[in-house]
Amino acid sequence: MTVNERVDLLRGLMGEKGIDAYIVTKFDPHMTEDSPEHYNYVKFISGFTGSNATVLITKDEALLWTDGRYFVQAHRQLKGTYFKMQKENSPKSVDYKTYARDITPQNGVMALNGATISVFEAMGLIDKLSQKDISLQIDIDLIGGIWEDRPELSNNKVFIHDIKYAGECRQEKISRVRGVLKEESIDAYVISSLDDIAWLFNLRGNDVPNNTTFASYVVITQEDAALFVHSDKISDCVEELAGSHVTLKPYDGVPDYLNSLGKDKIIAFDNRRSNYLIYSKISSGHKVRDIKEITSEMKACKNKVEIENIKNVNIRDSAYMVRFIKWLKENVGKQEITELDISEKLIEIRGKDKNYLSPSFKTIAAYMGNAAMMHYSATEESYSTIKPEGFLLVDSGGQYLDGTTDVTRTIVLGSVSSEMKRDYTLTLKSNISLARAVFLKGVSGVMLDMLARQPMWNNLMDYKCGTGHGIGFCLNVHEGPQNISTRVIAAPFKEGMILSNEPGVYR
Amino acid sequence: MTVNERVDLLRGLMGEKGIDAYIVTKFDPHMTEDSPEHYNYVKFISGFTGSNATVLITKDEALLWTDGRYFVQAHRQLKGTYFKMQKENSPKSVDYKTYARDITPQNGVMALNGATISVFEAMGLIDKLSQKDISLQIDIDLIGGIWEDRPELSNNKVFIHDIKYAGECRQEKISRVRGVLKEESIDAYVISSLDDIAWLFNLRGNDVPNNTTFASYVVITQEDAALFVHSDKISDCVEELAGSHVTLKPYDGVPDYLNSLGKDKIIAFDNRRSNYLIYSKISSGHKVRDIKEITSEMKACKNKVEIENIKNVNIRDSAYMVRFIKWLKENVGKQEITELDISEKLIEIRGKDKNYLSPSFKTIAAYMGNAAMMHYSATEESYSTIKPEGFLLVDSGGQYLDGTTDVTRTIVLGSVSSEMKRDYTLTLKSNISLARAVFLKGVSGVMLDMLARQPMWNNLMDYKCGTGHGIGFCLNVHEGPQNISTRVIAAPFKEGMILSNEPGVYR
Repeated sequence: MTVNERVDLLRGLMGEKGIDAYIVTKFDPHMTEDSPEHYNYVKFISGFTGSNATVLITKDEALLWTDGRYFVQAHRQLKGTYFKMQKENSPKSVDYKTYARDITPQNGVMALNGATISVFEAMGLIDKLSQKDISLQIDIDLIGGIWEDRPELSNNKVFIHDIKYAGECRQEKISRVRGVLKEESIDAYVISSLDDIAWLFNLRGNDVPNNTTFASYVVITQEDAALFVHSDKISDCVEELAGSHVTLKPYDGVPDYLNSLGKDKIIAFDNRRSNYLIYSKISSGHKVRDIKEITSEMKACKNKVEIENIKNVNIRDSAYMVRFIKWLKENVGKQEITELDISEKLIEIRGKDKNYLSPSFKTIAAYMGNAAMMHYSATEESYSTIKPEGFLLVDSGGQYLDGTTDVTRTIVLGSVSSEMKRDYTLTLKSNISLARAVFLKGVSGVMLDMLARQPMWNNLMDYKCGTGHGIGFCLNVHEGPQNISTRVIAAPFKEGMILSNEPGVYR
Repeated sequence: MTVNERVDLLRGLMGEKGIDAYIVTKFDPHMTEDSPEHYNYVKFISGFTGSNATVLITKDEALLWTDGRYFVQAHRQLKGTYFKMQKENSPKSVDYKTYARDITPQNGVMALNGATISVFEAMGLIDKLSQKDISLQIDIDLIGGIWEDRPELSNNKVFIHDIKYAGECRQEKISRVRGVLKEESIDAYVISSLDDIAWLFNLRGNDVPNNTTFASYVVITQEDAALFVHSDKISDCVEELAGSHVTLKPYDGVPDYLNSLGKDKIIAFDNRRSNYLIYSKISSGHKVRDIKEITSEMKACKNKVEIENIKNVNIRDSAYMVRFIKWLKENVGKQEITELDISEKLIEIRGKDKNYLSPSFKTIAAYMGNAAMMHYSATEESYSTIKPEGFLLVDSGGQYLDGTTDVTRTIVLGSVSSEMKRDYTLTLKSNISLARAVFLKGVSGVMLDMLARQPMWNNLMDYKCGTGHGIGFCLNVHEGPQNISTRVIAAPFKEGMILSNEPGVYR
C-alpha cells in the first residue's frame, strides 16, 4: 500500500465513524523519545521517519508538523503524498491544536489513540477544542486496525544492572522517592517513563532500539513499590526483586491498582510523561496532581560510582573513535566505504568491549552535503560513498554496562574549501566557548547556550538544534531535565549532571 | 507604636477571630510593583521599606521574605523587632507558602486581604493549604483596621496623553485587543494592571509615586470598552473618552459588571496581575481563563512615533546627566553635598525640561559602601556626605511626556583603589559585552544575560539582580514582558522592545 492509499483507507474509517479529524503522534504509551516501531504510526501513515512529528488528517487535508532538524528530510519523504509539512514553533505557522480546532466544525468530532498522547498535550488539545464544543474520542485506534504488517512488541528479557555500575541500591532509591512523597503529601506516584523505571529499580532491558529500557509502569506508595510488566519479560529478576520488596503486576494493571487503593487518595504523576488513556481511567474519587518527575532529577545527578564509570567508559570509547578514524583515513579511496559501512565498522570496533551492549542511537554518518540534514541517516535506498576529500560527519555512541557515550566528530578526508575551514573553526570556537564556561550553581542551560551561539551569531549564522543534552548512565542518550538550548526551560544545573557539547554548522 | 506593639495588636485580633496565621503582601489591588503608601501594609507592620516582601505572622513567629537586593537592608531594618528575615528563592530557605502550610495546624485558619494577592499566588497558596485542610479567609483586612495614620489614596486628576507622543489612537489599540479576543474566543477581558490601562487608553495620571498611572480597572468586550475609575479623577477626560466610545463605571464595579454580562461567558485575565478578591466574586456561571496580559506585549513593542520620542528624550536626559556630573565634580569638597542633595539636584536640572513630570523612580545616590546595598536609598535619618574620593553611584531617571529614562552612572570623585578600578572595568566589560550582542529574533533575555555575566563569572563574581528590564513610555520604569536576567522566563525579544543594560559589582 502507498501512503496515499493508507490515508484513503483511514479516511474511509473516519467517515464511517463520523470522525472529522484524526490525530497521530510519534509517542508510545510511555512518551518514549524514539519509540519502538510497533508504535510508529506516523511512519506507517505518512512515510516520514524522523523522531518528532504530529499528524492531522481530515477529509480534505493531511498535515505533518515537525521541527527544524527534519525540515529537509520531511520535505523529501512527503513528496508525492497527500501530506503537507508544517513547521513546529515557527512564527508563521499555526500549531496543530489551533489548526485542528479551526478546521473542525462546531460540535465536530476529533479522535486519537489516547495512549499515544501525554496528559499535558491532551489537556491543551481538549481546552482548544472546547472553544468550539468539539469532542475528543481517545479510545479509537484506527491505524492499529488497518496496519497489517505491524512490527511486534519485543519479548526481550529484563536483567539486573549490577550495583558496581549503579552505585546505589534500589531500596535506597525507592526510599528517597518515598521521602519526597511524604513531604508533598502524595499517596501514590505513577511513573510511566521507561528510563526512570530502569534507573529506579536498577534493571535494564532491550525493548526500545538502542535504549536499555523495557515496557513497564511503576507505582510507588509508602507501603508498596509495584512494577507493572509482562511476566515473561521479568522472569530472570523475580527473586532479586522480591528480596527488595518490589511487587510484580500485569503491564496493563495500573488503573485497576490505583482505583483499588481506597478513596480520596492523592495520586501524582508527571503530566508530560504519562499517557492520557491511563489518566482518563483513574476514578474521580481520587485527587490527581501534576508533578515534575521526581526520579528524573535524582537520575540526572550521577553518584560517585557512576561518575567513575562514566570517565572510564569515555576513555575506552575515545580510543575506539581513534581506532575508527585511523581505519577510515587509511582506507578511504582505497576500498569502497559507504555511509552505511561506517555504522557497521563502529559497532565492530566498539563491540569488542566486554561491557558493550548496542549503539546508543542510530549512527549518523553523513558525507558532505548529507550532513546538512540534522539527524540524517543513510538508508539502503539512499547513501553516499566516501571519497578522500571534504568532510565526513560521524555522530555515534555506545551503550555499555558502565555508561552511555555520545560522540560527534567532523573528519577531514582531503582537500576542504576555505568556507569549510571557516565553518569548522566556528564550530570549534563554539565548542570551546561552552567548554570553558564558568557559571553559578543553579543556572539553567539556556544561559550557557548563549556562549556556544555567540561565535555563530556574530557571523550571522545559527544552528537549528540544541547545543547539549543530558546523557543517561547505560540508559537513554537524551536525558533530562538539564539541557543546553535556546529553549527557555528552567532546569537548574546541579552537581553530578552530565551534558554533551555539540554546536554545529549545517549547510 | 513600635513594630512589635503593632504585631502584638495584630496577634490579639487574630486570637479573637480564630486566625492561626496572617499573611501580608507588598501589593495593591493592581499588583503594582511600587504600590502607593496607602497599601504599604508591610512597612506598617514590619518597618521594612524595600519594594518586595511577604510577611507571615503567627502566634509565635513573625517572618519576612525578601530577595537578594534587600538582604542587607532587611537585616538592618528588622533588627530589634520580632521579625526574622527569610531569603526568597534561596536553596536553603523554605518558600512562604510551604512554611505557612507547615506552621499552621491541620484544619487551621489562615487569612489575608484578598485584594493584595494575585490570583496566581492565591491559587498556589490554597493548593498548599488544602494539603492540610487549612482554610483561607480573604475578606479580612486586619491591618487596615489597626492602621490609624494610614496615608490617603491620591485624588490626582487623569489627563490625556497626546497622540503626538503616543503615536497610536486608543480606538486602534482597543481594536487590536478585540482582534485577539475574537481569535481566542474570549467574551470579556479584564485588565487590572495600571500601566496597561494607561497605555491602552492614552491616559496618564499620578496616583503612584514616580509613575504616571492611576487607580482603575478595564473590561474590554466586542461591544464595550469600560473604564472603572473614581469619577472625580476622570472629570477632565469625559468628553474625549465618550468620543472614543469608552464608557465610565465606578472603580469597584468590575464584579457586578461581569456578572451582568449574561451567563456562560468566557472571561479572561492575567492571573498574575489580577487580584484574588475580584476573581472570587465572579459568578460561577462564567468560565474564567488565565491568559498572558494581551496589552503587555503590544505596549512593549514601541511604535515609530514612540521610538522617535524616546531617542529625543534620552538625548536631552543625557545632557542633563552631563550637567549634573559637571556640577558635582566642580562642587564636591567645596560645599557640603549629601546623598539627599543629589536627588534634589537631579530634579532641579531635569525639571527645567518642558516635558518633565517627575522622577521615574526614587533616585539611588549611594556613596562608597552604601552602594553595596542594591536599591539603597538615603533617608533623613541616615545618609552620607560626599567627599572628593572614591565612587558615587547614581541611578536615576525621569518621567517626561515623551518618554521615561533610567540612567545609572558610577562617578569617580577622586582617588580610587586598584580593586575599585578592577570592579569598574569588569562592569564596563559586562555592559559592552551585552551592548555588542548579535542575536536572533525571538530570543529571550535569559540568554543575553550570559553575555553580561560572563566577565563577572570568569572572575568568580556575580551580582544578585537582573541585568536589564523593559522601560515604559511615559510609564513604569520597569515594564515587561521582556527582561534580561538569570530568571528563566520565556519572553521573546520583538522589534520595538527597549531594554536597559545595567550590570554591576556590589561589595
